[in-house]
Amino acid sequence: MAEEGKRNLLLTLRFIGTNYHGWQYQENALSVQEVLIRAGEGVLGGPARLHGCSRTDSGVHALTYCANFHTDHPIPCQKLILALNAHLPPDIAVTDCREVPEEFHARYSTQEKEYRYRILNSSIRDPFLEGFCYRYPHRLDEQLLEETFSCLLGTHDFRGFSSVGWETTDTVRTLTGLRVERRGDVVDIFLKGDGFLYNMVRIIVGTMLRVSEGKLSAQDLLTLLETGDRSLAGPTAPAQGLALYQVYYPEEALMR
Amino acid sequence: MAEEGKRNLLLTLRFIGTNYHGWQYQENALSVQEVLIRAGEGVLGGPARLHGCSRTDSGVHALTYCANFHTDHPIPCQKLILALNAHLPPDIAVTDCREVPEEFHARYSTQEKEYRYRILNSSIRDPFLEGFCYRYPHRLDEQLLEETFSCLLGTHDFRGFSSVGWETTDTVRTLTGLRVERRGDVVDIFLKGDGFLYNMVRIIVGTMLRVSEGKLSAQDLLTLLETGDRSLAGPTAPAQGLALYQVYYPEEALMR
Repeated sequence: MAEEGKRNLLLTLRFIGTNYHGWQYQENALSVQEVLIRAGEGVLGGPARLHGCSRTDSGVHALTYCANFHTDHPIPCQKLILALNAHLPPDIAVTDCREVPEEFHARYSTQEKEYRYRILNSSIRDPFLEGFCYRYPHRLDEQLLEETFSCLLGTHDFRGFSSVGWETTDTVRTLTGLRVERRGDVVDIFLKGDGFLYNMVRIIVGTMLRVSEGKLSAQDLLTLLETGDRSLAGPTAPAQGLALYQVYYPEEALMR
Repeated sequence: MAEEGKRNLLLTLRFIGTNYHGWQYQENALSVQEVLIRAGEGVLGGPARLHGCSRTDSGVHALTYCANFHTDHPIPCQKLILALNAHLPPDIAVTDCREVPEEFHARYSTQEKEYRYRILNSSIRDPFLEGFCYRYPHRLDEQLLEETFSCLLGTHDFRGFSSVGWETTDTVRTLTGLRVERRGDVVDIFLKGDGFLYNMVRIIVGTMLRVSEGKLSAQDLLTLLETGDRSLAGPTAPAQGLALYQVYYPEEALMR
């Protein structure tokens, strides 16, 4: 399908996912995409076909999210940012806008994505992190976890780390970054790669917790990676700890 | 008045002030103190006389807040933390509890307090900072502000930097710390001292913005400090940017 509109605009967003059923438009639930399309109608005077960089699960946040659309509207990028923000609710903001080549597509042009999973490693709540982390009281050894899970780096079949429900047959992905960082009681797990299967980040985190509890050994982890046996993996960690952290495009995809 | 109860317990709290009319109990509005007293009744079986380290304004947050009370209840400190948190709403948490000498008083034993005022220095909203900062679009020079306002350090009569409404006649305070730090678009102003007048931090911040806008010179600032003429100072910056950051007690006040 040909896109209407000569300008192709790439929007960068930040949103708190708590009140939304993910990015993707759905008939019976409120999505970030729907709210953004409505705001766009208010500004541009008509609906736009918005392409998001990825589906996100219900309740998942985005520190950076990218979406593009084509338009013939002449509004300057800086003005569009302010106008959209005036139409958006407090939990969604447009942080940047730039013109990109006609063929750029927020999803298909993606080179890599990085997710952050935030754990509050404490028996005590933190009001300021409520809804933005998963609280886990047992002491985590961030160095040990990073070392143990470095075996996931590289190109592997990650089907053992995905939930059923996606009709994808290609479950091979390349993980290029895995870091576990602690600052006080906050443990952040960063995963970077060319693509992620359904629930993959949350299942890797759930498996980390299982390893941390001594219920799964480093050897079991290798077996899980080799056999793809989902039953060996940990449970899916809660959505609220997850945030899309960064989206990477190749320079040439952005150059006009 | 003699305090009932042989144990004197010092609680450390964190709270989001948005939904409360400050710390102090009031007849017709919900306060943090009232919510904490109710939680304490649920745990200890009766009301406690809670002494807070300071009044805080409506909507002001606390990264650290201290309060003490006397009790005969034998509950161990660690258990009390968990029990209180189970009775408290998500926006208030007890983060620590320790036994202190009988005569310790969260307010009168205070040596110093430190406040943080957070500014989002951007024309663009950030959903994750919504309600936790004051958004100010004009570029702030954090080094220049820190230098210009360093004249406030030391012991001065700060009546020019306070709102009417407090029946205090002693308006001399000692400011021991003043820092302006930037990380990306976030500018944090830290003020530390032996005590603060009503709205003093927020008026100093409002005056910083006025200086930044070129509407008040460094010389005007000195005049304001010397004459105590409130009309020279800037407006009171909004409550949502302010948080009580740290409370300092002398070691001997805490030692049993």
